[in-house]
Amino acid sequence: MMRRVVAMTALLLASTARADDSAALAGAEAQQAYHAMVAFVATRVAARPKDSVILAADAPLVKGAFVPCESKPLALVIALDSAVRGQVTATADVVSGAHHAVDEARKASVAVIFTTDRPAAEGPGIATALNTLKLGPVTAGDTLLMGGGGDSRRAAIAAKYCVVAVAGSRLSDFSDKFAAEASDDARRAVAVHSRAAGQWGKGWFVVPDTAK
Amino acid sequence: MMRRVVAMTALLLASTARADDSAALAGAEAQQAYHAMVAFVATRVAARPKDSVILAADAPLVKGAFVPCESKPLALVIALDSAVRGQVTATADVVSGAHHAVDEARKASVAVIFTTDRPAAEGPGIATALNTLKLGPVTAGDTLLMGGGGDSRRAAIAAKYCVVAVAGSRLSDFSDKFAAEASDDARRAVAVHSRAAGQWGKGWFVVPDTAK
Repeated sequence: MMRRVVAMTALLLASTARADDSAALAGAEAQQAYHAMVAFVATRVAARPKDSVILAADAPLVKGAFVPCESKPLALVIALDSAVRGQVTATADVVSGAHHAVDEARKASVAVIFTTDRPAAEGPGIATALNTLKLGPVTAGDTLLMGGGGDSRRAAIAAKYCVVAVAGSRLSDFSDKFAAEASDDARRAVAVHSRAAGQWGKGWFVVPDTAK
Repeated sequence: MMRRVVAMTALLLASTARADDSAALAGAEAQQAYHAMVAFVATRVAARPKDSVILAADAPLVKGAFVPCESKPLALVIALDSAVRGQVTATADVVSGAHHAVDEARKASVAVIFTTDRPAAEGPGIATALNTLKLGPVTAGDTLLMGGGGDSRRAAIAAKYCVVAVAGSRLSDFSDKFAAEASDDARRAVAVHSRAAGQWGKGWFVVPDTAK
């Protein structure tokens, strides 16, 4: 045990001594995700899709059906953690690329909806902070949706909007069904070999949770 | 020291005990990067760009000029580590999305050039492995370029091709100039606030080095 502890510690110390590109690469990946989202949303504005990128209630990940768009207005959903890091205050860090994505969406008349697991009571304060951070206009209860399970919140948004893209940092920002997989390997297999896999970069955009 | 070692070890053990989405997310990010690249390359096939996405010799990152395309044929450059993980053998893991990107590029008559820092002597063996892994046809010295510095290798490719996209896992897969920055923070700043920042997802595609 002691030998293993020492080996692990040596590894940790060695990795901090080297030049570390991870912050730069995470920032680059966030920019990349938001740039790809802007380009993708433009294609959907040019040609309305038949379906939202929100899985229909009870649809499986592997061959999921999606909520129909009908004539609903277009929207973009951003899990708040993917746009602002840490506690959402007026001086928080906005993730690289998020301002651009939000601005381009609104210019194209695509509504921007932020979601967070924080309780409803924090809504007005978070909305004010987002407006100060130039991610608004955001109104709690309308374009900022709080609390509740991810899938039920997404279903409520897709009932009202044709959701053309989702940005998130966790699998649960896209579907609660990933959590039902029995192991990390099973979750990875479903993520890269299913109907879900076709969504990455084409409706579902991962923003690394280490990026600022 | 001992207390720190114990704390670090506790942290390591705690993080392995939880459900770990990192492999699934890394796979998703790789798919996303390659999907975004396929979409981006299609726009460049539809309308030839004026410039390659390779920085001109001695051009700075911040306001870099790029190598002109002139009438050169289109190409895509993939740093080998972003398409095949670990040692490149006939049974190695191909990164999620790489097959699709390579196939779509070739269908659109965009040449696919792999690059690696491995020595030239290993070229024929690696080319054979890539062909077996269905990433070919690849020929060492032609569509598989070995050894040498990154910038000089990229300059040689851009002299012959109009490079519309680069996939890589390290900053040095895009430009050697990142390494000249004095600190990790400076490298991050240049990556997200420079001419380079405009390239992420629009010519430069990061594939996380943890993705399979």
